[in-house]
Amino acid sequence: MSVTLADIRAARRRIASGVTKTPCTESIPLSEITGARIYCKHDNFQRTGSFKERGARNALLRLPAPQRRLGVVAASAGNHALGLAYHGKLLGIPVTVVMPDYAPLIKITTCQRLGANVIVHGRDFVEARARADELSAKEGFTYIHGFDHPDIIAGQGTMGLEILEQVRDVDAVVCPIGGAGLIAGLSLAIKSLRPKVRVIGVESTATGNFAAALKAGKPVLQPRRPTLADGLATLTVGANAFAIARRHVDEVVSVGEDWIALAILRMVELEKTVVEGAAAAPLAALMAGKLPQLAGRKVVLTVCGGNIDPAILSRIIESGLVSDGRLTRFTARISDRPGGLARLTRVIAECGASVKDIAHDRAFSGPDVSAVQVVCTVETRDRAHIAALHRALKKNGFPLSVAK
Amino acid sequence: MSVTLADIRAARRRIASGVTKTPCTESIPLSEITGARIYCKHDNFQRTGSFKERGARNALLRLPAPQRRLGVVAASAGNHALGLAYHGKLLGIPVTVVMPDYAPLIKITTCQRLGANVIVHGRDFVEARARADELSAKEGFTYIHGFDHPDIIAGQGTMGLEILEQVRDVDAVVCPIGGAGLIAGLSLAIKSLRPKVRVIGVESTATGNFAAALKAGKPVLQPRRPTLADGLATLTVGANAFAIARRHVDEVVSVGEDWIALAILRMVELEKTVVEGAAAAPLAALMAGKLPQLAGRKVVLTVCGGNIDPAILSRIIESGLVSDGRLTRFTARISDRPGGLARLTRVIAECGASVKDIAHDRAFSGPDVSAVQVVCTVETRDRAHIAALHRALKKNGFPLSVAK
Repeated sequence: MSVTLADIRAARRRIASGVTKTPCTESIPLSEITGARIYCKHDNFQRTGSFKERGARNALLRLPAPQRRLGVVAASAGNHALGLAYHGKLLGIPVTVVMPDYAPLIKITTCQRLGANVIVHGRDFVEARARADELSAKEGFTYIHGFDHPDIIAGQGTMGLEILEQVRDVDAVVCPIGGAGLIAGLSLAIKSLRPKVRVIGVESTATGNFAAALKAGKPVLQPRRPTLADGLATLTVGANAFAIARRHVDEVVSVGEDWIALAILRMVELEKTVVEGAAAAPLAALMAGKLPQLAGRKVVLTVCGGNIDPAILSRIIESGLVSDGRLTRFTARISDRPGGLARLTRVIAECGASVKDIAHDRAFSGPDVSAVQVVCTVETRDRAHIAALHRALKKNGFPLSVAK
Repeated sequence: MSVTLADIRAARRRIASGVTKTPCTESIPLSEITGARIYCKHDNFQRTGSFKERGARNALLRLPAPQRRLGVVAASAGNHALGLAYHGKLLGIPVTVVMPDYAPLIKITTCQRLGANVIVHGRDFVEARARADELSAKEGFTYIHGFDHPDIIAGQGTMGLEILEQVRDVDAVVCPIGGAGLIAGLSLAIKSLRPKVRVIGVESTATGNFAAALKAGKPVLQPRRPTLADGLATLTVGANAFAIARRHVDEVVSVGEDWIALAILRMVELEKTVVEGAAAAPLAALMAGKLPQLAGRKVVLTVCGGNIDPAILSRIIESGLVSDGRLTRFTARISDRPGGLARLTRVIAECGASVKDIAHDRAFSGPDVSAVQVVCTVETRDRAHIAALHRALKKNGFPLSVAK
């Protein structure tokens, strides 16, 4: 069950006609904010929005004819399901996907639209997987594991070959780790051809499967914890993937959820691209100062997917504006008589800040009925501007308390 | 002051080392929703996020040495300012930009960071322009008009040359119109080389400068009206730009602001790319059914810029979810005694909808103090799901009124 460079090269030829060779472009603005020379490998531009198509198409094309006719099954809440559904349809191979209850509605409907037979079942991945195994036994479907099947790992490795061709003299490749399928294939490809290129893995502080496996010497089951980077939220790294990756990955770092959120915003603002949490993790690690040794180096970030729920993206943008000091909230105490609000809003306007939302909090304003608290959400330039706004409000006699 | 194909070809050679040849990629999901075969010319991936760099660099490089030393000035609230600032810095040419008061904070600070001397002045473009003319007279700066200078028009035309090389057998190119600088250069390049390719302009129903000019036979001043597509909100089309474009543009259509908003969301969701309003207008025109003759044709959308304020993007995403039926709001009347809210939220949960926000509207709940109105914001799958939710609520005895 091992994977070799030859397997990855064969996978590349096999999938070439159906999977996009995505651009790997230099980013001047991301280079400016990180101090490294940043390139983005844009697998979020794959047809179904993630790198998972590479492995999925390779695994499907490797099936012998009888298995092709019977079809395949997988348990997945996300991108693996989309990749299999799409390429199954292109290749005429029936695909059944078992998605756990918590799978986002949008992924369920997209998967159906792509032509897969979707079964929503199980409170967690283990239950979904059990149902997929039942179907495999009963219907003869071949089970295709999302990150540990050797054909999947070989397929993901094709991204490594492309990066080496696209970025001459690359110094390092930074890659998120969920089940470790991508980093296994990628690091195998890169280290086999160019051993001096550093391959660095990134996990969220809310996940950490690879670090746990390194410590234990083998994959261990971790409890599922909420993370913005749902692509990283596997229960464990794969056994095959871990065996390969541990030999080739130079370093693994962990980055906080707040940095992942801010990295998603920076990708939107500076790179004009939409990424999911996992795909923002490499930039987040650089922004958080976790990789100081990459200063001045030529660094490829694997922007592995763009399937983020728009409602979540919208929340992340707003919380990013808050951490940038471009949106702020405070509670001010004003007179409850006519003109109280007019005076407050005049001070805010004179500071050059713009009120986005204002709400009276009458019931919890305390015993003095001549005064009332108002909760103000205000657009500002930066943290210094917020501080100036606070000073002006206090100077003009508005006691205020500030949301954290 | 005319522009020729030779000027555009010369501009291309001139700017090649400093302006990105952006990708022009096929989009299967956008093809699916429009019925045409869609390619996106991604000038939102230029360094400063828009096509304006093409013209700016060309105009700067065309300056004789003495003018280069003195520097240039422009009045601009947006992308032209960014393009000039960036290439001025690269070329060592001093750039002064006069931005009107309403210019977004983010564009002002970005322009400063790129090294321009930024003067914020004027309640409208006319006042900003007047100040820029003063500076030009006093300091000897060369004024570079954002969309009517022949060197600017020739520079923008380079996008047309790239499109013809990148998309074989293209049938039509759809391009937004603000001041008409882009469509002038683009249509001149395309029609000179491939007269059968249709060039179609798109305006917002809130702008319409080109349609007004066509009607009047010359550029006319229009009042500034608010639009999501601030790139289209010029006071008029340029005289040179109009003279060129009217000879080459096949058709101009107008599209509503709501369609532009929804097109921005579709670009985020399906194309994983961030666009500003103007850049979404071509997709909006197709989505709105304004270009039925393009069904089945190979169509390039000029995705001309990505500089959208993240706070506005966040609002557009949320209003897009509302028009998709994926976010809904209604007011329900519940008992004000313990358990009233529990019963309501149970019905919502049983429908598979997810409560995002709930607020009691006690003061305006009417005279019956045993009941209270609650305003619920709920995540749903689609419009049919909303209808099912409404039925379930009514069946369970919750009178409701629905936000428009």
